[in-house]
Amino acid sequence: MKQRLEKLQTWMKENEIEVSFLTSSENVFYLSGYYTDPHERLLALVVFQSEEPFLVCPGMEIHDARRSGWEYELLGYSDIDNPWELILSSINKRINGVTKAAIEKEHMNVERYEQLSRLFPKAAYVSAEEKLRKLRMIKDARELKIIEEACALADYAVEVGVSEIKEGKTELEVLNAVEYALKQKGVTEMSFATMVLTGANAASPHGNPGGTKIQKGDLVLFDLGVVVDRYCSDITRTVAYGDINDKQKEIYDTVLKAQLAAVEASKPGVTAAEVDLTARRIIADAGYGEYFPHRLGHGLGIGVHEYPSMTETNPLIIEEGMVYTIEPGIYVPDIAGVRIEDDLFITADGAKVLTKFPKELQIIK
Amino acid sequence: MKQRLEKLQTWMKENEIEVSFLTSSENVFYLSGYYTDPHERLLALVVFQSEEPFLVCPGMEIHDARRSGWEYELLGYSDIDNPWELILSSINKRINGVTKAAIEKEHMNVERYEQLSRLFPKAAYVSAEEKLRKLRMIKDARELKIIEEACALADYAVEVGVSEIKEGKTELEVLNAVEYALKQKGVTEMSFATMVLTGANAASPHGNPGGTKIQKGDLVLFDLGVVVDRYCSDITRTVAYGDINDKQKEIYDTVLKAQLAAVEASKPGVTAAEVDLTARRIIADAGYGEYFPHRLGHGLGIGVHEYPSMTETNPLIIEEGMVYTIEPGIYVPDIAGVRIEDDLFITADGAKVLTKFPKELQIIK
Repeated sequence: MKQRLEKLQTWMKENEIEVSFLTSSENVFYLSGYYTDPHERLLALVVFQSEEPFLVCPGMEIHDARRSGWEYELLGYSDIDNPWELILSSINKRINGVTKAAIEKEHMNVERYEQLSRLFPKAAYVSAEEKLRKLRMIKDARELKIIEEACALADYAVEVGVSEIKEGKTELEVLNAVEYALKQKGVTEMSFATMVLTGANAASPHGNPGGTKIQKGDLVLFDLGVVVDRYCSDITRTVAYGDINDKQKEIYDTVLKAQLAAVEASKPGVTAAEVDLTARRIIADAGYGEYFPHRLGHGLGIGVHEYPSMTETNPLIIEEGMVYTIEPGIYVPDIAGVRIEDDLFITADGAKVLTKFPKELQIIK
Repeated sequence: MKQRLEKLQTWMKENEIEVSFLTSSENVFYLSGYYTDPHERLLALVVFQSEEPFLVCPGMEIHDARRSGWEYELLGYSDIDNPWELILSSINKRINGVTKAAIEKEHMNVERYEQLSRLFPKAAYVSAEEKLRKLRMIKDARELKIIEEACALADYAVEVGVSEIKEGKTELEVLNAVEYALKQKGVTEMSFATMVLTGANAASPHGNPGGTKIQKGDLVLFDLGVVVDRYCSDITRTVAYGDINDKQKEIYDTVLKAQLAAVEASKPGVTAAEVDLTARRIIADAGYGEYFPHRLGHGLGIGVHEYPSMTETNPLIIEEGMVYTIEPGIYVPDIAGVRIEDDLFITADGAKVLTKFPKELQIIK
């Protein structure tokens, strides 16, 4: 944590930012070690170039925050306090006015921005997010270890899901069995709402699982992730229930070819755009370009969608230590929906694939 | 939906607001009927005084949005489009410049606010939230029916939880059994992370369930809610496992007395503050004032925390049609944590209690 705070402070000095006022649960956790979802209440980590930082949280969480290992000042407030007055006083104890402040512009809402602007009306407000995304984009050994655990549990979840496929079972029944099995392993949180989609339902890239029953000839799609120590995994596998037709097979093969090529292309020095286009071209060449309507993937960590964003226009250079997903998909309404997704860790030699459930077409009898 | 849009439009006319630019999933759903969690992508409902509204969503969701019943323009964008240019063009087709715009200041982030301000640099931006909260605060018959269903499932969940209590079982084991039973009933989403806390753990108002084992003499606290058709319920019950001591009993009795008094005090014409203070005084008089560190309750609906906010300083007048929680609690570290929470619907005659699981101290043998 201290090293992370120091990196932020170095950046603040370089950019003459006197104060960083960070409000997202994820960045507060990344820098302080304390995670909470404060709902509509204010959570803030206030960092200075040299002075001691302080953490603002609902008063009833003070003990939890202290127990999480935060060593510096804790500013608790009750539901009837005005936290902004307390914050102003704590800032004024440390520094003499603010001319430039860093905030999370994609997280802080306009109401809080107006509150903060009233405290420091002469300050310029710049975004802290680009810097925090870059810090968070490169994972350390401890983070990798946690993500590997989360990926192993995601593999297990798909394994359970595939074993539950049976004629006439609904998407929700399979989903429940998967999540129940995970809970028995101590999992308390999924990265996002688990998806089990079958047949025509899987042909929507963001369909919702429901009462649709699995039938022979269906492609069944699993998209899920597990949270371990606040880090996310994210896997997608599509399997066949019984024999599928040639069109479905062609679509599966195309997605798999694109996915494998993009994994192969993932290494330090190439751009995110090159990786995306490696997969996108294969899908377009097979005639399915218009049926792949989303980016190739996204970074993964404390957030389930982090940097790098794997789009066809992102010039960002891939580096050692990055963790991201590769998840091409083809969705042809009423015919087939196939997506295959792995989580990758980038090493000097190329990609290490962290999700290990087989990708060759599985035909469940 | 049309009536809701019309009420918003009337307010816009009264306040000379040419455009409302709404971005939260909850308010977009309330006014359009389409619910989606767009993650970091932009979702927006754009409403005018008289011209036709339009809905902005990720391109891949166009079909889902149409299927949800939205009849007006749908503006889809891909991950490589700039949605702001499309939005500007759609607004310019309808009206001639913007001098006053309404946004959700507590939801819209600073980055989007800056984008919007670039499109309409001369506009004043006012908050739409107060108006939407007031609209949403009064539930119609259809909404009440859905919330009643959600409450019945919450009652069932507590019933399952209580029946699972056994010497040596962990909080997580009980929690899993509860959620599994709900899923078997078709529940796909909880209002928030379910809490099952036992013994000293329950003495934190926002503790997290884990591997702590239930032991004789523990107070076991359940706090959970079920989402039905996007509406939330929220219930808390605390039960005794085996015989508890006099101090624990005194705390339970005090909370129950405060809870019943606040339910009784809930009727049209009183203020939220009076209701809160009715419970707070009873707890303070019993000597536990400092151990009740949160507000008495909160409104409930599409959001799990809505208006009215039941604090000791809120002058808001309680009205027919409101739905809110009454949830006093006393948390004495290492001795006891007790909270009892019901969901109330306000009628002309007073409160109708929607959560029905018994509140008299249950001693599980």
